[in-house]
Amino acid sequence: TLDVSERDAQTSHRTITLPGLINIATYVPNASHVIKGPAELKETTRLFLESGFTYCQLMPRSISGPVITDVASLKAANSVSQDSSYTDFSFTIAGTAHNAHSVTQSASKVTALFLPLRELKNKITAVAELLNQWPTEKQVIAEAKTADLASVLLLTSLQNRSIHITGVSNKEDLALIMTVKAKDPRVTCDVNIYSLFIAQDDYPEAVFLPTKEDQEFFWNNLDSIDAFSVGALPVALANVTGNKVDVGMGIKDSLPLLLAAVEEGKLTIDDIVLRLHDNPAKIFNIPTQDSVVEIDLDYSFRRNKRWSPFNKDMNGGIERVVYNGETLVLSGELVSPGAKGKCIVNPSPASITASAELQ
Amino acid sequence: TLDVSERDAQTSHRTITLPGLINIATYVPNASHVIKGPAELKETTRLFLESGFTYCQLMPRSISGPVITDVASLKAANSVSQDSSYTDFSFTIAGTAHNAHSVTQSASKVTALFLPLRELKNKITAVAELLNQWPTEKQVIAEAKTADLASVLLLTSLQNRSIHITGVSNKEDLALIMTVKAKDPRVTCDVNIYSLFIAQDDYPEAVFLPTKEDQEFFWNNLDSIDAFSVGALPVALANVTGNKVDVGMGIKDSLPLLLAAVEEGKLTIDDIVLRLHDNPAKIFNIPTQDSVVEIDLDYSFRRNKRWSPFNKDMNGGIERVVYNGETLVLSGELVSPGAKGKCIVNPSPASITASAELQ
Ligand SMILES: [Zn+2]
Ligand SMILES: [Zn+2]
Ligand SMILES: [Zn+2]
Ligand SMILES: [Zn+2]
Ligand SMILES: [Zn+2]
Ligand SMILES: [Zn+2]
Ligand SMILES: [Zn+2]
Ligand SMILES: [Zn+2]
Repeated sequence: TLDVSERDAQTSHRTITLPGLINIATYVPNASHVIKGPAELKETTRLFLESGFTYCQLMPRSISGPVITDVASLKAANSVSQDSSYTDFSFTIAGTAHNAHSVTQSASKVTALFLPLRELKNKITAVAELLNQWPTEKQVIAEAKTADLASVLLLTSLQNRSIHITGVSNKEDLALIMTVKAKDPRVTCDVNIYSLFIAQDDYPEAVFLPTKEDQEFFWNNLDSIDAFSVGALPVALANVTGNKVDVGMGIKDSLPLLLAAVEEGKLTIDDIVLRLHDNPAKIFNIPTQDSVVEIDLDYSFRRNKRWSPFNKDMNGGIERVVYNGETLVLSGELVSPGAKGKCIVNPSPASITASAELQ
Repeated sequence: TLDVSERDAQTSHRTITLPGLINIATYVPNASHVIKGPAELKETTRLFLESGFTYCQLMPRSISGPVITDVASLKAANSVSQDSSYTDFSFTIAGTAHNAHSVTQSASKVTALFLPLRELKNKITAVAELLNQWPTEKQVIAEAKTADLASVLLLTSLQNRSIHITGVSNKEDLALIMTVKAKDPRVTCDVNIYSLFIAQDDYPEAVFLPTKEDQEFFWNNLDSIDAFSVGALPVALANVTGNKVDVGMGIKDSLPLLLAAVEEGKLTIDDIVLRLHDNPAKIFNIPTQDSVVEIDLDYSFRRNKRWSPFNKDMNGGIERVVYNGETLVLSGELVSPGAKGKCIVNPSPASITASAELQ
């Protein structure tokens, strides 16, 4: 672990101060499981907090399907999250073929409706009904999957509403999104941070990764990528490569990977703040937090507790995370014992203007 | 062959008079092949004329790909069609990944741009460019194929232009089209006549056929089907079932199949005229012809020259086809020797209003 005094003495180390970061696609597969849920959520949000994130939007899904789909499962998730989150957070709720009316009842309690396109495959009428019932001022999230991406973009375009595509993973999908964005800035998207740095070419078995060519397209069209995210991709990669799957994979790698790209001149710090704070807050109407993160750009470390494709020295240490005036993280380690994160959903609707002004 | 006097004597036979029918998806795979083309076109259009059709819009494709894609191939097709068509006709031209600017030069000479989605798969930018270059007042045709249908509908919706989907073959595709039509009546579609009567359940190897369930959805949503068509499906069916493939398959079955549905009360004669004449003319801006078709509803026949899945007695004989005052067909047989059909494309643009008023 980091020694603060030692670091402070190293005057050649550059530090920067950012607002607390927001992860919009947090993977907590047991979010509504009252037995397994609390420990998983604690571990996940602790890792996010120690990585500079002060807000986690939770995805309502596991590998086997949606886990938050109605009043009862949302209530279970709320109970799981009592005193179990180190960051502020929000839930999202998943649409299914037959819950359009019931998810709508929970709209005010979540930040977005998630459309699990695999489960809704070929169910155009169900997706149209979900979009129709869901309040216009509330966000909708869909995963980018070539075949279904166009239908969901078509339906949202017909209904004249916003949509956020999460986990864009190939250039055709991004090109389609770009075409739609050119006409309607309410269409936004994110790319998993791992997808910017590891390619199918490196792990041929991981067909969900972009190819080098896709990645090149991402880097050349960064302006069209509204947000970065840490989602389920690191877990999927560990799975497919036969490595041990742990809770919280890929979280601590994320910011150092982006900071390395800054060093290479491919990205600026502002690009990171825009995509891990400003845009996520606008897109999902997340209230302003009083939070500050201090980062030591030159602190070098090698992590080896969890499997990672980046088994090398990385730069970027979280010196301090301050939330509401209280120091929660010091030298990369949690120093505040309580998991005091709150479920925070903005009661006032997002102004369409705000999201239309993105970038 | 029919004996006119015998038929006239049978006063119990009901006859009806329709305008000359229009087929919007005529399959002539050698349309631009100067050696094989003329005989194929003659045979095809003769069968159409003898079946009550006086206008054929030709598809620019064969099983192996597009056959009319530029000025040169369109010129070849024009030369093929000299004195080789028994009906009036028009060509359509196929878009490719790199002919957006050149097809546009031929726009005034054809009735529509055809987007072969198989060849344009994952080429969103190319399709967007084709749609962007193609004159707004000219029609675009795309084949309905689940994965690509949504993208092409999305792109046309973004460009605020009309599109016609040909050969809808499953209920999900029709449901998607219906959803879009509800917002934009410039989206139109046709179903192959065979698709209304034979199902994948009968020919499991023919995966391009609808299932019985799809068919039920078609019949229940006939209002959303703007046109009927005779396309390449009968040939594809012969192919996949190992039957002999001939030029002109499925043409002579088409009207009798629809007339049988009228007898069953599933359809009216007006429904047929709307979908084989009125709507095709509006959708593709086809000039009015001076043509009349007399049909004997009770004339029974069994056809066995070409393989057909309908190896049974069918009702509906073409008594007479009169074009510009001249009788071209009598008792189901061509009586005018010359192939005097002309390439007829309306020089004046279709009014958007006309197509918006469809149905
Ligand atoms: Zn340092
Ligand atoms: Zn359910
Ligand atoms: Zn409803
Ligand atoms: Zn903030
Ligand atoms: Zn008769
Ligand atoms: Zn070409
Ligand atoms: Zn151009
Ligand atoms: Zn007419």
